Amino acid sequence: MALLGCGVVGTEVVRLLNEQADDLAARVGAPLELAGIAVRRPDRVREGVDRELLTTDAQALVTRDDVDIVIEVIGGIEPARSLMLEAMKSGKSVITANKALLAEDGATLFAAAREYGADLYYEASVAGAIPLLRPLRESLVGDHVHRVLGIVNGTTNYILDQMDTHGAGFNDALEEAQSLGYAEADPTADVEGFDAAAKAAILAQLAFHTPVTAADVHREGITEVSAADIAGAKGMDCVVKLLAICERVPSADGHNGDGRNGRGVSVRVYPAMIPRSHPLASVREAYNAVFVEAKSAGSLMFYGAGAGGAPTASAVLGDLVAVARNVAGGTPGPVEVTYAELPVLPMGETVTRYYIQVDVTDEAGVLATVAEEFARHGVSIQAVRQVGLGEEAQLVVVTHRAPDAALAATVEGLRGLDIVREVASVMRVEGEE
Amino acid sequence: MALLGCGVVGTEVVRLLNEQADDLAARVGAPLELAGIAVRRPDRVREGVDRELLTTDAQALVTRDDVDIVIEVIGGIEPARSLMLEAMKSGKSVITANKALLAEDGATLFAAAREYGADLYYEASVAGAIPLLRPLRESLVGDHVHRVLGIVNGTTNYILDQMDTHGAGFNDALEEAQSLGYAEADPTADVEGFDAAAKAAILAQLAFHTPVTAADVHREGITEVSAADIAGAKGMDCVVKLLAICERVPSADGHNGDGRNGRGVSVRVYPAMIPRSHPLASVREAYNAVFVEAKSAGSLMFYGAGAGGAPTASAVLGDLVAVARNVAGGTPGPVEVTYAELPVLPMGETVTRYYIQVDVTDEAGVLATVAEEFARHGVSIQAVRQVGLGEEAQLVVVTHRAPDAALAATVEGLRGLDIVREVASVMRVEGEE
Repeated sequence: MALLGCGVVGTEVVRLLNEQADDLAARVGAPLELAGIAVRRPDRVREGVDRELLTTDAQALVTRDDVDIVIEVIGGIEPARSLMLEAMKSGKSVITANKALLAEDGATLFAAAREYGADLYYEASVAGAIPLLRPLRESLVGDHVHRVLGIVNGTTNYILDQMDTHGAGFNDALEEAQSLGYAEADPTADVEGFDAAAKAAILAQLAFHTPVTAADVHREGITEVSAADIAGAKGMDCVVKLLAICERVPSADGHNGDGRNGRGVSVRVYPAMIPRSHPLASVREAYNAVFVEAKSAGSLMFYGAGAGGAPTASAVLGDLVAVARNVAGGTPGPVEVTYAELPVLPMGETVTRYYIQVDVTDEAGVLATVAEEFARHGVSIQAVRQVGLGEEAQLVVVTHRAPDAALAATVEGLRGLDIVREVASVMRVEGEE
Repeated sequence: MALLGCGVVGTEVVRLLNEQADDLAARVGAPLELAGIAVRRPDRVREGVDRELLTTDAQALVTRDDVDIVIEVIGGIEPARSLMLEAMKSGKSVITANKALLAEDGATLFAAAREYGADLYYEASVAGAIPLLRPLRESLVGDHVHRVLGIVNGTTNYILDQMDTHGAGFNDALEEAQSLGYAEADPTADVEGFDAAAKAAILAQLAFHTPVTAADVHREGITEVSAADIAGAKGMDCVVKLLAICERVPSADGHNGDGRNGRGVSVRVYPAMIPRSHPLASVREAYNAVFVEAKSAGSLMFYGAGAGGAPTASAVLGDLVAVARNVAGGTPGPVEVTYAELPVLPMGETVTRYYIQVDVTDEAGVLATVAEEFARHGVSIQAVRQVGLGEEAQLVVVTHRAPDAALAATVEGLRGLDIVREVASVMRVEGEE
């Protein structure tokens, strides 16, 4: 067994391998021996890590005869990809926590696993220690998943939770998250939704047995979420969450998207309102949770810590025991089957609901003019009410489900109306049937 | 493939096998063919089930050459056990939803699976479609589980939820549950906790890698839960749930129960208070949820529909795809490893907290007398307050953690005090650290 990378997760993996050696050996049926650890800077101090095991030659390590399993926790695209491919080509099985690589080019890795009969396990890549991929990959493999709705980024959930609880603005909440270590100095990957989009791609691929990459995912971050948005959500008895949404889209003739049929899938990440009664609404602080709706299983939810060294290492070790058993048994576990080849639909065709706050001039006929603008784009209004008077006059509109393109055009149209002073808040509404 | 039993779950399995035949074949890599269905009454009408497949000779069916996988959904101990043993002896793999049998005599089945190299999968036996056993068995196999706290019986959760929401008494809530189909005409297995105890045994065995049977589980049902208990819980900002609790118990020298060490495990089922802020508190109606605490993974929760034909069939089909892949690959999946052999401790040694309401005479020194009774048994009081006056005078006591035997002795002692008119409510408090 070889470890590639020895940062926060790698160090924790080494620590647990040592500390739980007896238990792991009993569960596998044979001891797990770490043959080497590839690092860039062997001189750095790593507590509890035997320096004898360190090497800078990752290439040589992954092809060594005394290595049968390679654990990759370097992250990033290269050299992680080349090293994993080299390892599988040499008959090694691979465990990885690398969501970026899986979301960008998982197909190459899965193809190699099939070609060389190698295991490729990656539970740690999404939602840390929450067992999520294995249930999707195996437990629900006999079912028909309609929708996956997830809070898969702890940083943004922490920020939005602070905004909801304390009325903080985005920048203040971000600063607090940074000071507490929940957000990095450069928070782009989290707050702009890149991290969540990579995870959404991996989840969609598993849920719908169809290839999805990060580039296919419509992505909006939370930097534009305002205190007004949060207040508006409260008025609706909703809460704002950054959601990763993977949905089957039925075909126009009503075919519900079974198997190879249906129009396609929609995979998207954005901040949206969900009702406070939804199980995801009570996911606080930096926790993650994923809500899955399947035809026979109904609604399921998986909840837990989505990041951090120890939870991620727990997921890696779970995969390690499984792979080590497969290696001992001489047969790899199940490989990915993406037989469905469903198209990923553009965001404009995705059907959602909108919540819109419009600052308007307080005069007769305003409501009718605004309602007409919705009708002109074929968007049906579920409810509209006026709040405030005079210079504070505001219309709050909630729509029925409509294609996102029609909703976006409506918002553009509203902005062009004389009686509209400002479109103060636009937010999608999810989590309802 | 053969099916044993064709009741609610069996019929749903057949329906899904037909309806999703193409998808399942794509996921397995080969079509799944049902060779026969063993039933007791072949003349009964079963919608969507091909009568040509029915047979009353289960014994012959499980050893047929064209059968490689046997799905058991008969339930009960016999003939289910003999048929599964016979099937494994003949080289067939087995999928079962039979919690009663697994909890009573799982060891015999696991031994047979090991001896004959057969798969034995049973995700459907606990919490319906909630993927729970596979995560415990595989995802968390590299971690160290401290505690499993679960709502694993939908009937009792529905009843307690009605009592909490509408202030209904137990009998009224039970009647309503029966009229809505959530409870059976003979509700004993549910309301007396037998069903939950069987599931607790299965969960404890997986979580702690140690043999546990239903007979080892301390079991109390919900028939004694009164409106006063529910009201008391509300006053504590708690809710009453029937909990299945599996815990490692550290040894006296503070060893935290890693691996083969620690004093043992505690496995118990009873109604208890949990704080409303606990994720399990928001599990409403007939839903199930299981909260798992592990050393590295932290706190995890799994939530979903815990029973019903379709959810249970979903779990059976997930197992079926996994087993069919194993059969096609020529190697069985992981077998149970119960290497730990930790003793199951008697309830008296289990450490819990108590909530006690005592109706007392309203006179000076009552509080001191009651407090003395706790001290006499070595039970430390966390908080005590008097509510009501005169004939309504009542003391509400919440204890710190103490051995259950000491708490029980305290309650007995209280009953013998002159100043105590009645011990109105006694309930354990769980879900806190």
